[in-house]
Amino acid sequence: MQKVYFDHAATSFPKPPEVVSAMVAYMERVGSNVGRGGYASAYEAAGTVLAARERLCALLGGPDPRNVIFTLNVTEALNMILKGFLRPGDHVLVSAVEHNAVMRPLVQLSQTGVAFDRIPCDGEGALCLDALDGLVRPSTRAVVLTHASNVAGTIQPVAQVGAFCRAHGLRFIVDCAQTAGMEPVDMGSMGIDALAFTGHKGLLGPQGTGGFLVTDAFEKELDPLISGGTGSFSHLETVPALLPDRFEAGTLNLPGIYGLHAALGFLEETGIDVIRARERALTARFLAAVTEDDRIRVAGPRTAEGRTAVVSLDFPGRDNAEIAFRLDSEYGVMTRCGLHCAPNAHRTLGTYPQGTVRFSFGYGNTEEEIDYASDAIGRILNG
Amino acid sequence: MQKVYFDHAATSFPKPPEVVSAMVAYMERVGSNVGRGGYASAYEAAGTVLAARERLCALLGGPDPRNVIFTLNVTEALNMILKGFLRPGDHVLVSAVEHNAVMRPLVQLSQTGVAFDRIPCDGEGALCLDALDGLVRPSTRAVVLTHASNVAGTIQPVAQVGAFCRAHGLRFIVDCAQTAGMEPVDMGSMGIDALAFTGHKGLLGPQGTGGFLVTDAFEKELDPLISGGTGSFSHLETVPALLPDRFEAGTLNLPGIYGLHAALGFLEETGIDVIRARERALTARFLAAVTEDDRIRVAGPRTAEGRTAVVSLDFPGRDNAEIAFRLDSEYGVMTRCGLHCAPNAHRTLGTYPQGTVRFSFGYGNTEEEIDYASDAIGRILNG
Repeated sequence: MQKVYFDHAATSFPKPPEVVSAMVAYMERVGSNVGRGGYASAYEAAGTVLAARERLCALLGGPDPRNVIFTLNVTEALNMILKGFLRPGDHVLVSAVEHNAVMRPLVQLSQTGVAFDRIPCDGEGALCLDALDGLVRPSTRAVVLTHASNVAGTIQPVAQVGAFCRAHGLRFIVDCAQTAGMEPVDMGSMGIDALAFTGHKGLLGPQGTGGFLVTDAFEKELDPLISGGTGSFSHLETVPALLPDRFEAGTLNLPGIYGLHAALGFLEETGIDVIRARERALTARFLAAVTEDDRIRVAGPRTAEGRTAVVSLDFPGRDNAEIAFRLDSEYGVMTRCGLHCAPNAHRTLGTYPQGTVRFSFGYGNTEEEIDYASDAIGRILNG
Repeated sequence: MQKVYFDHAATSFPKPPEVVSAMVAYMERVGSNVGRGGYASAYEAAGTVLAARERLCALLGGPDPRNVIFTLNVTEALNMILKGFLRPGDHVLVSAVEHNAVMRPLVQLSQTGVAFDRIPCDGEGALCLDALDGLVRPSTRAVVLTHASNVAGTIQPVAQVGAFCRAHGLRFIVDCAQTAGMEPVDMGSMGIDALAFTGHKGLLGPQGTGGFLVTDAFEKELDPLISGGTGSFSHLETVPALLPDRFEAGTLNLPGIYGLHAALGFLEETGIDVIRARERALTARFLAAVTEDDRIRVAGPRTAEGRTAVVSLDFPGRDNAEIAFRLDSEYGVMTRCGLHCAPNAHRTLGTYPQGTVRFSFGYGNTEEEIDYASDAIGRILNG
C-alpha cells in the first residue's frame, strides 16, 4: 500500500539525508562533549554548536548567536520563559488558540498567583486585535502568542501585536513551533522579546532539539528554570551570568544539534520562500478539493492565504477518529486526529469536543499525494 | 598520532555500533512522534520508548517502567526532583562532593528559603556517615547524594544512607550519573526515592538522553517543573496525573531514546559485571603506575576498590592544564582538566583551586592504552 505522510505539524518526515549523515558523523567520528574536554574533538563539537546558533540567529532575526538557547523541545523553552519571568501578582495575555505548551504552564502558575486572560479569536482562529487594548491591566506584563495555530494553520498578526506590546511596555513572547523554517520570522522587526522554536518540524532537524532566542534586555528578567554544570565558571556554585550558559545546564543533545545544523544548511540552500510556495500550492490544491464537498467542514481559513500547510477537517455526523483510522489502514494516509493538545483552539473553531482530522503537508509531499488523499476521503465518505 | 580517549566520565566514546544504527533506523524508517499520530509507525516508536523504560527499570531496580521519566540530561532530571520537591522552609542534606547539577539548583533554592548543609567527606571523598545524624533538623526533608564522585571516583555508601533516610523519614535522592551501567544500582534495596541518570556515560547511549526513576509515593510530592502537551488528556489544560506523562511534556528525543534502547541491549548482553571487572582492572593498572611516581598525587582512593574508573591526578609544582594540553597535543591522550563542575569536591580532596587532570576509562580501552598514557605522563614530567 502507498504511504502518504501528512503529519508534518507533529514532526517533519523524511528529514533531508544530510541530517542523518551529520548525526552519524558526530556519533562515529566526534563523540565529544562541549566545554568538558580540552582536546581537539571537543573544540570541533563546540564549533558546530556555535554554527547552529549562528544559522538560527540569522534565520529568525535574533540579536546574537549567543542569545540562542538550546533545550529538549519547544515546550521546555516556553516553560523556561514563562516560569522564569512571571511572578505572583503578574497578569499575562494569551490568544484563545494556544497550545498546551503555553496553557499548562500558565494554569500551573495561576495556582501561585499569576493571572491570565485569553484574547478572543474569530471562528477561523484569527486573533481579534481590537480586543487587545481592553484586556490590558496595570499588572499585565506580557503577551504570549503562537505564530500560527497548530490546529487550523491560521497565521497571527505577530508584527501588529509586537507593536502594541512595545507601545504598552509589555514583553512579547512568541511560539513559532508551527512557522520556523516555513514562514518569515524576524524577532527584531516583529518586536519579539523571546521566541520559542522547535527543531524537528519546519526546521527539518531531529526530535530532541528546540530552544528559544531572547533579547539581552529580557533575559535579565528571567530566572533560570534549570541550572547545573555548564563546563564554565566551574569554581562557582551559582549560575553563570553569560549567555547561553545561563540557560543551558548539563550536556546538550549534540547528535541532535549536529542534525539540526545540517537541516538549517538545507533550508538556507533551498530557501524558505521556495518551501513556503510549494507548501502553499499543496495546501491550496487540498483545500480546493475538500471545500467542494459539503460533507466536510474546514476548521479555519478556507483558502491558502494567511495560513500554514495545516488543514483540519471535521466530518459532521461521522466519527472523525474512524475516518482517520480508515485513511491510515485502508489508504496509508497518515494524519493526526483529536484535539492536538489545544482544547481551547477547538472550542474557538467550533470543533470541541469531537476534534478534527488534521492534514499537514511538507516540502517533500506531491500533488499526486494530495489528489490521492482527497480521493480517499471521498471514497470513505461514500462508503 | 595514536588517539587515546580517557574522558568517559564526560561522555563514553565510541558507542556500541548498534547505538548508531538504531538512531539511523529511527531517523530513516520510523520518524514518527509518539502519542501524536494514530498510524502504525507512531505505535512502533511508542513501543521502543516503552521497551527502553523497561530496560532502565530492570537495570536500576525501579518500581515500574512507567516510573521512568526521560529528560534532556541528568541535570534537568535533578532540577525536576529538587525544584519540584523542596519548599521554602525545607532543609536538605548533601554530600561535600556534589556536582554543580545538584549545587547550583540548591543555591538557587536557597534564595527562596530552602536551606542546605553539606555532609563532610574525608580526604578521599568518602562520606562521613557518622556525621549524618548530627546534621538532621526538624525541617530536614531529604538527603541528596551522588553515587560516585565525578572527580575522584569514590563510591558512596548509598545503601547505608538509604537505611538512615528510611529510619528518619527523609526522602533519598541519588545521582547515578557516574555509576549507571558500571556499578550495581538497585533503587528498592538501596532505599532510593528518586534516582537521576544520564544516558550517555556508562549507559553508552547518545547525548541528549537522561532522566529519573521515582517511586509512586515520592512522585506525588513533586510538582512538575516542566509542563505542556503530552499527546494525552488533550482536553485538559491541567497536567495529567499519570506517569510518565506527568513529567514528560513535549516531544521526546526519539532518535536518542532509540540509541539508548540499543545501548541498554548491549549492556544486558555484555553484563555490567563484565564491564565493571574490565574497567576496574584498567584502573588498577593505571593506579599502580601513577602511585609509584612521587611527583604525582592521586586525588581520591589510591586503589581500585571502592571507586569507579575515574582517576584524578594533581602534579604539585606543575601546571595541570599544561600537562593535560601536552598529553593531548603530543601523545593524543584525551583527558579533562580543571574543576569538573564540582568545586567543593576539589576543596574536599585538597585540589582547589588548581583542579586535577582527570583520566576516566571505558570498557573499550586497553591495557596498552593505559601503559601508553602512564608512559606519556612520565615523559612529560621528565621533560
